[in-house]
Amino acid sequence: MRKYHKLVVNSIGKLVPSEVNGKPEIPFKGVGKYIPANRIYGAPIASCANFPSDGNKRIDSLKDSLIQAGLSDGMVISTHHHFRNGDLIANMVFDIAKEMGVKDLIWFPSASFECHSYLIKYLEDGTIHHIEGSMNGSLGSFTTQGKMAGLGVLRSHGGRYQAVQDGEVHIDIAVIAAPTADFFGNANGVNGPAACGSLGFALVDSQYADKVIVVTDHLVDFPCVPWQIQGNNVDFVVQTDKIGIPEKIVSGTTEMTKSPDRLFLANLTAQFCDKAGILKDGFSFQSGAGGISLAVAQYFRNIMLERGIKARFARGGSNKYLVSMLEEGLLEYILDGQTFDLEGVRSMRENPNHVWTSPFTSYNYHGKGNFAGLVDVVILGATEIDINFNANVVTHSDGYLLHGIGGWQNCLFSKTVILTVPLFRDRIPVIKDNVTTICGPGELIDVVVTERGIAINPLRQDLVDLTRGSGLPIVSITELKELAEKICGKPALPIFTDQPVAVVKWVDGTILDTIWKVQD
Amino acid sequence: MRKYHKLVVNSIGKLVPSEVNGKPEIPFKGVGKYIPANRIYGAPIASCANFPSDGNKRIDSLKDSLIQAGLSDGMVISTHHHFRNGDLIANMVFDIAKEMGVKDLIWFPSASFECHSYLIKYLEDGTIHHIEGSMNGSLGSFTTQGKMAGLGVLRSHGGRYQAVQDGEVHIDIAVIAAPTADFFGNANGVNGPAACGSLGFALVDSQYADKVIVVTDHLVDFPCVPWQIQGNNVDFVVQTDKIGIPEKIVSGTTEMTKSPDRLFLANLTAQFCDKAGILKDGFSFQSGAGGISLAVAQYFRNIMLERGIKARFARGGSNKYLVSMLEEGLLEYILDGQTFDLEGVRSMRENPNHVWTSPFTSYNYHGKGNFAGLVDVVILGATEIDINFNANVVTHSDGYLLHGIGGWQNCLFSKTVILTVPLFRDRIPVIKDNVTTICGPGELIDVVVTERGIAINPLRQDLVDLTRGSGLPIVSITELKELAEKICGKPALPIFTDQPVAVVKWVDGTILDTIWKVQD
Repeated sequence: MRKYHKLVVNSIGKLVPSEVNGKPEIPFKGVGKYIPANRIYGAPIASCANFPSDGNKRIDSLKDSLIQAGLSDGMVISTHHHFRNGDLIANMVFDIAKEMGVKDLIWFPSASFECHSYLIKYLEDGTIHHIEGSMNGSLGSFTTQGKMAGLGVLRSHGGRYQAVQDGEVHIDIAVIAAPTADFFGNANGVNGPAACGSLGFALVDSQYADKVIVVTDHLVDFPCVPWQIQGNNVDFVVQTDKIGIPEKIVSGTTEMTKSPDRLFLANLTAQFCDKAGILKDGFSFQSGAGGISLAVAQYFRNIMLERGIKARFARGGSNKYLVSMLEEGLLEYILDGQTFDLEGVRSMRENPNHVWTSPFTSYNYHGKGNFAGLVDVVILGATEIDINFNANVVTHSDGYLLHGIGGWQNCLFSKTVILTVPLFRDRIPVIKDNVTTICGPGELIDVVVTERGIAINPLRQDLVDLTRGSGLPIVSITELKELAEKICGKPALPIFTDQPVAVVKWVDGTILDTIWKVQD
Repeated sequence: MRKYHKLVVNSIGKLVPSEVNGKPEIPFKGVGKYIPANRIYGAPIASCANFPSDGNKRIDSLKDSLIQAGLSDGMVISTHHHFRNGDLIANMVFDIAKEMGVKDLIWFPSASFECHSYLIKYLEDGTIHHIEGSMNGSLGSFTTQGKMAGLGVLRSHGGRYQAVQDGEVHIDIAVIAAPTADFFGNANGVNGPAACGSLGFALVDSQYADKVIVVTDHLVDFPCVPWQIQGNNVDFVVQTDKIGIPEKIVSGTTEMTKSPDRLFLANLTAQFCDKAGILKDGFSFQSGAGGISLAVAQYFRNIMLERGIKARFARGGSNKYLVSMLEEGLLEYILDGQTFDLEGVRSMRENPNHVWTSPFTSYNYHGKGNFAGLVDVVILGATEIDINFNANVVTHSDGYLLHGIGGWQNCLFSKTVILTVPLFRDRIPVIKDNVTTICGPGELIDVVVTERGIAINPLRQDLVDLTRGSGLPIVSITELKELAEKICGKPALPIFTDQPVAVVKWVDGTILDTIWKVQD
């Protein structure tokens, strides 16, 4: 099914649709250049007169709650990825929709995982029209092959908050899987058999969706404390047997990489931060939950112990390494957006300084500032980086959409942004002339660390000066690219059709780039 | 200055203005009868591009922040009563306005105290046009004498949240005095020299005001944890020497009444609750911070110890008595809206089960339920009660406006509402044919406890049945009225002019009653 898309060129020269799924869109205008002139979305005003006077919002089943919430054709239904690959709720919701014969739904997850490839059948039979949210793995391949009826819309975690707050996405029904809840709808993720830590990704849904359903397998007496989700925003509470598969929600252990290559990269990154003067008393950092990122944090730890330095806070996904730094006093606060292991969950439950956050506090670009800008250094990955420091995290060099954006775009506003990547993967260069999809404009990316050298963005002359004569292997990004090509050769470019299959939004809701259907 | 007001009769027969300060108003339609059809107010969308990239929102002085916030004629300026009679900030704000020659401001405090009688001079010279908020003591007398340029608007704590959320009141500048804050604007009331406990009354202002200024005398490094006010909603942070007078903010000790009459009343109230079967395991209660209320909680405590009963939660202002019940395990949670003494502040800082709440969670009638409805029994006071159980808390029988509504109206939605009052005060009957001002419709008031007998609202036949033969002095409300008149005589009614000076809003924003200018 070929559709006509009117395309325009945005400020970084990328061809993007001027309309997505029937709604007009704004092309990317440059970092900080688009200033919205409208107002935050106002949900319909509720009244206590329409809610049970004793606060008991329980309803018998998920199906009943969806019926009462008015589930019908074309609605936007949201779910969340707090349970990662152990989520059982999203698939259940669409099973019910299928059973009810509802069509053309828009699924608006905070992220999707491989367990959600189950939903491909509903994309094929018209139960789901399209997905606005990350399309990893199988869902990504499906999309890149042009098989989804509508265009996919990829947003960062902060961009998802922004889109709902700004009224770009109107959620008809939000289904929030909650490890613990009371009958009023107060809910948290720190207790119960499916404990997952924070429920921050569902905050915006609870604030702005027309109808909010909390589903739990661990109902407690009012008040459920802490209330990460506030019952005052909730319409219905459903109790079910099991909302998630605990061992897939949080792994008992998060392990750092044992690969010597990756440890080398992590160490080099930590060394760079040290030489650049970033690791000083009271500093702050964010590194993800991948093997390299965990190792970077451990190298930070070693340097901090050596120098007698403490960090004021770490942002990001929490894990046992950050928790041990918190509990040893090397770290004063963890500002946690997503909890990656059981130690993280325990710590959030027990330590007042392990604070749950949300995309609102941390990442929303359409707020009066956000936490990401306050972080001294953030260490991220990328699938590709170009010689202008533009980077890609969603597609591979073969054109396939295989990853979501997560908080990656939002973190680019931290004071120093480091991408730590191998120079090549499977003999495909990571540093290239052009990236397949631009997810982050090069002006926001300060440093690229590879095992063959470190490239500093010329915009960061301060970092160039600070690390001159440090003994670190500082090179230009072009040198890295040439070295990669020398080793791997210049790989053939993927062949795309002229049909958009998804768009990548910037943190301000404008369209940064397009993902194209690959040639069969 | 005589103004023409078009008046209409509302559903309880009271004459109310159809327009207040130039805005059309809805007359009260009955409890639960007015269902709003519009949307929550949407503040202008902000952008990180317009805020400091490092998150530092500090500005040199309160005056500079007000200038940058655009202080100008006719604006709505909000402040809060977390510091009660120890507040220094509200008066400062209007000193600055006066100095700048700004006129016709509307002051929108969460409550006013005697310290704010300082502002009478600004009401007289036109700096402040009128007050929307409680007008206690001197400000109330000033208003009742018809000296305020505009009409006063009295709202409950929940009604204040509702009015801002619904867009009935648009706050131009919110000034939030914060005992602790960081440069990003995260703030709390649990630490610092002016520690006051919760900052919940300022929540709505931080969410919806155009400009939000946080003023603190205790600036800490980011992150200020807990963040009761979120920096993501804050425009400017001002550091000053002193924001409040600690000994007037929270008294070191809250003492219960020693008056034998009042102890008798408190005991009778507790006995009623016991006989009515309310004091059972897992029950919940709210009683205020007045002498009688504190004593009721202590009598509850005795009964609970005797029976081996525990309470699930207590709502309301916290104090050392509730804290000791929490710490002895007699009480599982304190859901705290306002912290009345230093023990309350300490407990909120230390006990995870001592939870700060806000008028949103507890009282907002235009939410999807609120906490007040979940409370088993609430014990409140009143200035007057009529034979239909309608009650008054704002005016005295001489017609003078002397008190704010506080959370009183909101608490009327609790499962059992008890008004504990003396039969007369200074030889003026409390139980009357008609109250001077209706603040709470009689249908929501279940029981009136006086030292001469307990009257149960006939609508609560269940309570009548439960306490029959209990030995409690159950009488009719008419008997109480007649007894009061027998002792005191029937006092002369106040003589009012036909000029409204203030209105009393119901929890849904409609107009419940009018306060009239008294005859000179």
